[in-house]
Amino acid sequence: MEQRVVTLENMNPHVIKMEYAVRGPLVIRATAIEKELQAGAQKPFQTVTKANIGDAHAMGQKPITFIRQVVSICLMPSLLDDPSIPDDAKQRAREVLAGCKGGSIGSYSDSAGIEAIRRHVAQYIERRDGFPSSWENIVLCAGASEGIRGMMKMMIKHDNSIKPGVMIPIPQYPLYSATIAEFDLHQIGYYLNESTNWGLDMAELERAYNEAKAVCNPKALVVINPGNPTGNVLPRENIESVIKFAHERNLFLFADEVYQDNVYAEGCKFHSFKKVTSEMGPPYSEMELASFMSCSKGYMGECGLRGGYAEIVNLDPRVKAMYLKSISAKLCPTTLGQAVMECVVNPPQEGEPSYEQFQAEKKAVLDSLAGRAKMVVETFNSVPGMSCNIVQGAMYAFPQIKLPEKAIEAAKAAGQAPDVYYAFQLLENTGICIVPGTGFGQCPGTYHFRTTILPQPALLKTMLEKFREFHTKFVERYQ
Amino acid sequence: MEQRVVTLENMNPHVIKMEYAVRGPLVIRATAIEKELQAGAQKPFQTVTKANIGDAHAMGQKPITFIRQVVSICLMPSLLDDPSIPDDAKQRAREVLAGCKGGSIGSYSDSAGIEAIRRHVAQYIERRDGFPSSWENIVLCAGASEGIRGMMKMMIKHDNSIKPGVMIPIPQYPLYSATIAEFDLHQIGYYLNESTNWGLDMAELERAYNEAKAVCNPKALVVINPGNPTGNVLPRENIESVIKFAHERNLFLFADEVYQDNVYAEGCKFHSFKKVTSEMGPPYSEMELASFMSCSKGYMGECGLRGGYAEIVNLDPRVKAMYLKSISAKLCPTTLGQAVMECVVNPPQEGEPSYEQFQAEKKAVLDSLAGRAKMVVETFNSVPGMSCNIVQGAMYAFPQIKLPEKAIEAAKAAGQAPDVYYAFQLLENTGICIVPGTGFGQCPGTYHFRTTILPQPALLKTMLEKFREFHTKFVERYQ
Repeated sequence: MEQRVVTLENMNPHVIKMEYAVRGPLVIRATAIEKELQAGAQKPFQTVTKANIGDAHAMGQKPITFIRQVVSICLMPSLLDDPSIPDDAKQRAREVLAGCKGGSIGSYSDSAGIEAIRRHVAQYIERRDGFPSSWENIVLCAGASEGIRGMMKMMIKHDNSIKPGVMIPIPQYPLYSATIAEFDLHQIGYYLNESTNWGLDMAELERAYNEAKAVCNPKALVVINPGNPTGNVLPRENIESVIKFAHERNLFLFADEVYQDNVYAEGCKFHSFKKVTSEMGPPYSEMELASFMSCSKGYMGECGLRGGYAEIVNLDPRVKAMYLKSISAKLCPTTLGQAVMECVVNPPQEGEPSYEQFQAEKKAVLDSLAGRAKMVVETFNSVPGMSCNIVQGAMYAFPQIKLPEKAIEAAKAAGQAPDVYYAFQLLENTGICIVPGTGFGQCPGTYHFRTTILPQPALLKTMLEKFREFHTKFVERYQ
Repeated sequence: MEQRVVTLENMNPHVIKMEYAVRGPLVIRATAIEKELQAGAQKPFQTVTKANIGDAHAMGQKPITFIRQVVSICLMPSLLDDPSIPDDAKQRAREVLAGCKGGSIGSYSDSAGIEAIRRHVAQYIERRDGFPSSWENIVLCAGASEGIRGMMKMMIKHDNSIKPGVMIPIPQYPLYSATIAEFDLHQIGYYLNESTNWGLDMAELERAYNEAKAVCNPKALVVINPGNPTGNVLPRENIESVIKFAHERNLFLFADEVYQDNVYAEGCKFHSFKKVTSEMGPPYSEMELASFMSCSKGYMGECGLRGGYAEIVNLDPRVKAMYLKSISAKLCPTTLGQAVMECVVNPPQEGEPSYEQFQAEKKAVLDSLAGRAKMVVETFNSVPGMSCNIVQGAMYAFPQIKLPEKAIEAAKAAGQAPDVYYAFQLLENTGICIVPGTGFGQCPGTYHFRTTILPQPALLKTMLEKFREFHTKFVERYQ
């Protein structure tokens, strides 16, 4: 074989640098184990439990009937004659199709999405927040990730080799670290406070900002609320402090609010950044802010259908024109994903035929998740050497594990970080696939992992028992 | 209003530079005119005809029944009990669902796509080319654009401010110029030869390469076959010459083959680059090559559903691992778009219940397109001052127009390129929206436009007559 055109030496160095642990080496190994099991291999377990990714349907959650009906009709309008499908689902599908060029869901939409759906998103936000939202500030996208990347891309400009800096929580959802690496931006990590249930401390935000200022040009602040992987839900006064902080330092706010429907703990409530800036009034309500939502999370869990939106406010109009141009070359987000978002922002209303079933299905999912959130936390806290904060929201727990010195040495000998070593041992011995804390970031010298709370209750219970057993044995072995 | 965080001065300069004319200012104006008409404005026309974009369903093409049935079942498996849906559609949907985690199309797939569909893509390529294809070289993507961008991204590395160079045809599909600008690569344009029906001349390829070598590091060669916007179909011996050229100069081949089903002219045949390299044997069959396909074009025209694939062969395995990592942070392409690709690569076979209807629908679309390709060319060639090459394939004509000196002066006075001025005049006077040649590139001093051949025959006929009338008057006015 001759010299290749693209080699590890001459390829994009930022792609080499980026990491996305949620689909990293551990998950690749888990998939390989699944194939080995299918081929008849003998293991100490029969199936792999993938608690590594927030993929609700993969773990047995059922889709919301109304969503599937609306999207199916969009594809096959002959279903408008199907008497088993309720009228409100038909009505939504008719509205979507009326917004499609040529009346077909198979035509391209505008790059920012179908206007009728963008208008419904704005109305949804108005109902949620009690403040105006303009449909022209709404951009539909193929999942929140695309929206986040598309907006962050706007900030890439190196001035005399000073990089723009992006503040992200640690632990964080690795889309951020991956995107920052790929775009060659400077990552400014601010640690969430594990001892206050992963609280967002202003002093730590300040510290992180001040230290970074010397080496980069801080431009943006990312907040994930409810938190991934931490499960914390920000109190309103905390959000207000963060907004003031960002305003004083002229930072663009990225509000990752994809878990806005996933709030479980008593006394916790979701407050959107847009609502709080609106309540605070000028100058805060004039800040540049992007908020992201997805159909992959919440009670929908429609990860594969790739629907999402960004609400982007107060952009300089000339910058907005450039942003819209930048998404135009990607043509449009999937129209079917857009149709899913239509259902999310324009669900059946009281009095409509699907209302009760929709509410019942939604409630069942969210109640069950709330129960599982509790079960996970209680179990982990009952295991010696493990401690887990309350999962107030989102879909994950991020417990801390105390690892014996000898286990840390064994990991070093294996060339792995201690939590990675632990996670591989867990996988090989129990079939449980979680993501080690290094993939999200953690205070040096502490070890964590992220697990989803998504396995259905019976499976989750079994998984947690196996986990307890494994952890106990692991600690014993290295004691 | 205070100083914004993101301004035209400090934002990503490459985004400012990129242009995507297919959705540019002319199209924005066309959409505005549509709204004016809806609001009751009086114009010399009643409707806007959008011949600017290859969006078949928007122009009245009907979807292929089988595709819509399969995808609908994936969304609503209760349709498996619908007696009006044929068994082969049900069978395909079952196979797709069996490949989905948790049996739901709403779960994430692997980032490279559902394995069963990747396997079927490889089998489709084997049937098409008569040479082996490995499913592990297949990556499903949300339309070809995403695949092209994802692979081109791998090449971004500036060595001492020498940029990697990418050779693209002129005229080209502006996804390429936009992506090259955004990624800060160096665009190397090679002119297609209008006098030989937009032929790809080896001497011109050589000239372009040699001139560029001094200012960049040429890394890749893009060929669009069948051609967009030119409509030419490359003869096999031409492809062989291009492959030899790329091999001698160590260039990575990008074969944009999304119009592989759209070949109309007698004596023309689609040859994939992969097939020709395979026939040529080593060292050519060992070259790095990426070929792209889409469900947006062909006879399907499912633009909004965002399905596509890339076959990427002979990558350095370490580079391939990095490539797969780079797409993992984007989670996965829409599973419904993947299901559409399943139908394209695994259509009903002879003897299956949907076979005849599928073939009839496919043939009707392609025959009609062939007829429209002829009608467009004949009409344009009958208009004094217009000349149009044969549309051998794809979905566009790219005629040359001779503009009077005074029209060129009027354009200058209006601050527009002459073909842009012409296109705006056409739009305002007739409601016909086409894309001026500057959006694709053209030999200096020549003027062109791209029109799709997608309006249904009656509308196309009317459009072409209005076009003739406009052009005649335009030339008279400035004579």
